[in-house]
Amino acid sequence: MNERLIPAIAQDWRTGEVLMLAYMNDEALAKTQETGKAHYWSRSRNKIWLKGESSGHFQLVREIRVDCDEDAILLLIEQEGGACHTGYRSCFYRTIDGRVVGEKVFDPHDVY
Amino acid sequence: MNERLIPAIAQDWRTGEVLMLAYMNDEALAKTQETGKAHYWSRSRNKIWLKGESSGHFQLVREIRVDCDEDAILLLIEQEGGACHTGYRSCFYRTIDGRVVGEKVFDPHDVY
Repeated sequence: MNERLIPAIAQDWRTGEVLMLAYMNDEALAKTQETGKAHYWSRSRNKIWLKGESSGHFQLVREIRVDCDEDAILLLIEQEGGACHTGYRSCFYRTIDGRVVGEKVFDPHDVY
Repeated sequence: MNERLIPAIAQDWRTGEVLMLAYMNDEALAKTQETGKAHYWSRSRNKIWLKGESSGHFQLVREIRVDCDEDAILLLIEQEGGACHTGYRSCFYRTIDGRVVGEKVFDPHDVY
């Protein structure tokens, strides 16, 4: 894998909430476009990852945007369940001081 | 610079618009916290970069969030002017098909 990975931000298309940041290679982007469901490149598992494949919490893609330099992607999505494996709706559920500001929407023990 | 860079998303604290994605090292994060203005690490210039230092379009930081794995940052900011050097309010002003969906807020010739 010498292929370039670019960061992809998933944002709730309706509320504007930023849900997560993950990485895409060309194949992940192509599969996302083909299927309408967000696919990423997992840097830990070193493979393509369909978001929701184990949790059922798929991300239905409404629009894909690119930034000025074409080195970042913004996905406007409809999130089924929660984006975060911890059970929060967004992975950004804490401030840098550790204060919890996010909403818990499922119990990870029930899902994974 | 062997230091880890982590992606930082800047989001309008009021409207929820995602404005840009840039990178931070520890020093950029510390300067952001000290000054209340977003600082990033410029990968092209290889130095700390105060967003707005040449344009005057500073980003006033209202809140800093971290993600579940602590390898991404979300800045809730008040954007002066526009975030994008092209004159758009957001760097994500185009869909992947090239359709312009963003709002132009300044003429870059007047600013840079």
